[in-house]
Amino acid sequence: MRYFITGCAGFIGSNLADRLLSEGHEVVGYDNFSTGFNEFLVNANESSRFKLVKADLLDKDLLIAAMKNIDIVCHMAANADVRYGTHHPHKDLEQNAIATFHVLEAMRENGVKKIAFASTGSIYGEAEMIPTPEHAPFPIQTSLYGASKLAAEGLIQAYCEGFDFQAYIFRFVSILGERYTHGHIFDFYKQLLNDATRLTILGNGKQRKSYLYIQDCIDGMLSALQLSTNKVNIYNLGTDEYCDVNNSIGWISEFLNVSPEKIYTGGNKGWIGDNPFIFLDCERMRNLGWKPKLSIREGVTKTIKYLTENPWIMEFRE
Amino acid sequence: MRYFITGCAGFIGSNLADRLLSEGHEVVGYDNFSTGFNEFLVNANESSRFKLVKADLLDKDLLIAAMKNIDIVCHMAANADVRYGTHHPHKDLEQNAIATFHVLEAMRENGVKKIAFASTGSIYGEAEMIPTPEHAPFPIQTSLYGASKLAAEGLIQAYCEGFDFQAYIFRFVSILGERYTHGHIFDFYKQLLNDATRLTILGNGKQRKSYLYIQDCIDGMLSALQLSTNKVNIYNLGTDEYCDVNNSIGWISEFLNVSPEKIYTGGNKGWIGDNPFIFLDCERMRNLGWKPKLSIREGVTKTIKYLTENPWIMEFRE
Repeated sequence: MRYFITGCAGFIGSNLADRLLSEGHEVVGYDNFSTGFNEFLVNANESSRFKLVKADLLDKDLLIAAMKNIDIVCHMAANADVRYGTHHPHKDLEQNAIATFHVLEAMRENGVKKIAFASTGSIYGEAEMIPTPEHAPFPIQTSLYGASKLAAEGLIQAYCEGFDFQAYIFRFVSILGERYTHGHIFDFYKQLLNDATRLTILGNGKQRKSYLYIQDCIDGMLSALQLSTNKVNIYNLGTDEYCDVNNSIGWISEFLNVSPEKIYTGGNKGWIGDNPFIFLDCERMRNLGWKPKLSIREGVTKTIKYLTENPWIMEFRE
Repeated sequence: MRYFITGCAGFIGSNLADRLLSEGHEVVGYDNFSTGFNEFLVNANESSRFKLVKADLLDKDLLIAAMKNIDIVCHMAANADVRYGTHHPHKDLEQNAIATFHVLEAMRENGVKKIAFASTGSIYGEAEMIPTPEHAPFPIQTSLYGASKLAAEGLIQAYCEGFDFQAYIFRFVSILGERYTHGHIFDFYKQLLNDATRLTILGNGKQRKSYLYIQDCIDGMLSALQLSTNKVNIYNLGTDEYCDVNNSIGWISEFLNVSPEKIYTGGNKGWIGDNPFIFLDCERMRNLGWKPKLSIREGVTKTIKYLTENPWIMEFRE
């Protein structure tokens, strides 16, 4: 099969590319390298079945031209920064909603009918049902990130109805593992690298979080693509366990063999629009026979191990 | 109070302007006249408390400049054409989602914190629960119109959380009455005006529809604005009754004293993405003490009466 991966030089995109190439598929990667890394494509670049297009999703003409002879689009590109949405509201709209619209239009232009989309558990806002199933009550958005992903989901669904597309929408918890470069775990590691004696924690440390390991995430996506046959296939992707921020700090500290003083900024939210608890009901995904192989702790540890082995990443992230 | 009404020269916007002016408020109207009519502002223009700005919502700078000293924005402007979404997908995205983003940014720029928004029952897609309450299961979008309104709702909600806005989101059924210029009833009237002996009906005529009379709609919006105090206030706005397409054709024919031959195109949907049945649970709105004064039949009849008395409208609509 010929896959087109947007955000191919990013965390999830590059891991997905490696997996698909290892299974013998052809992959066209598309990335503007705004947050992606060439280093993540070292494996992919060794394959003759991999082609990279350095371009922006906001450039619709380039996108249309790049998406030739494709069987399925995996739209992984995003502004994945939940926290700073209010600093630049246009960024979520452009990079998540409008970029997705361009992907859909490029698909239509090229006769591509199948799309997998990286959505988010943030879309459930402050969910009334926890764990939250896909058919939870119609949520109220609490972040520009969530709102822009919701916009993208809605557009994709409307294209399924209007243009006979088939969609696989995955609502992720936070994903961890090799090539992870942003979020709680990254921030904590970076702080400890600068000063292992103290750690500032946004909120009270009791915010509960659910994390999924990247390879488990990819297993889940590929299972659904293979086994689910509806017009619109929506799947939560997470683990059946969760931890709180203090747990993850403990695991990180243990792995790094440090004992920082913990300074809490207070409150039950890390920042405005932070969801105190994203915990997804993944029964629909499990019913496909999928289950995660790694625990949250194993995922956190693998992530920190990767970061310690790849110090170059820290130089590129403020 | 000083109101800012987008889509002020449109069906709902102009009626809302008239009502607010009659209650002694000041109104700044904003419209690009893409589908609005100067004729709808004849009453408003007589008031010294009314000011009109002819400009486009996609021109953010003009919008920011126009929105000075405003207490509340009533964002009624939209591409309200559900049916032809697939003919020009960018139109819904631009005129509903991106335009709403500009409204929100203009509010932020001007320190306006309160917004009323005209959303739609189309947002529930093919609802699993009928009548459909506001907290229905997370829907799947079936039209670009619904998807773009969902995108707008999500953005508005995120601004409430991120920038301390207060929002009133109204999910309308189809609205009827004076200045109504598009939709089923309009199409039927136009056909009968050309040839009273035959009427082509998309679908099988059994599509059930719920309609609300414009003044009842405005009563509902103003009730919620006065009585509801949450950060995000979401209200369905419709009637507790419904009719099918054949009913409304009967009422129209009776009012016009014609007996057309009915030609059905067949199927249970009028077009791709048409919702066979939008019927909203309006208990939340009723709990504010609101209820519609007119029946669907009375609304349909008033609409046809208005169209017969204003033949100029037909010249401007293809």
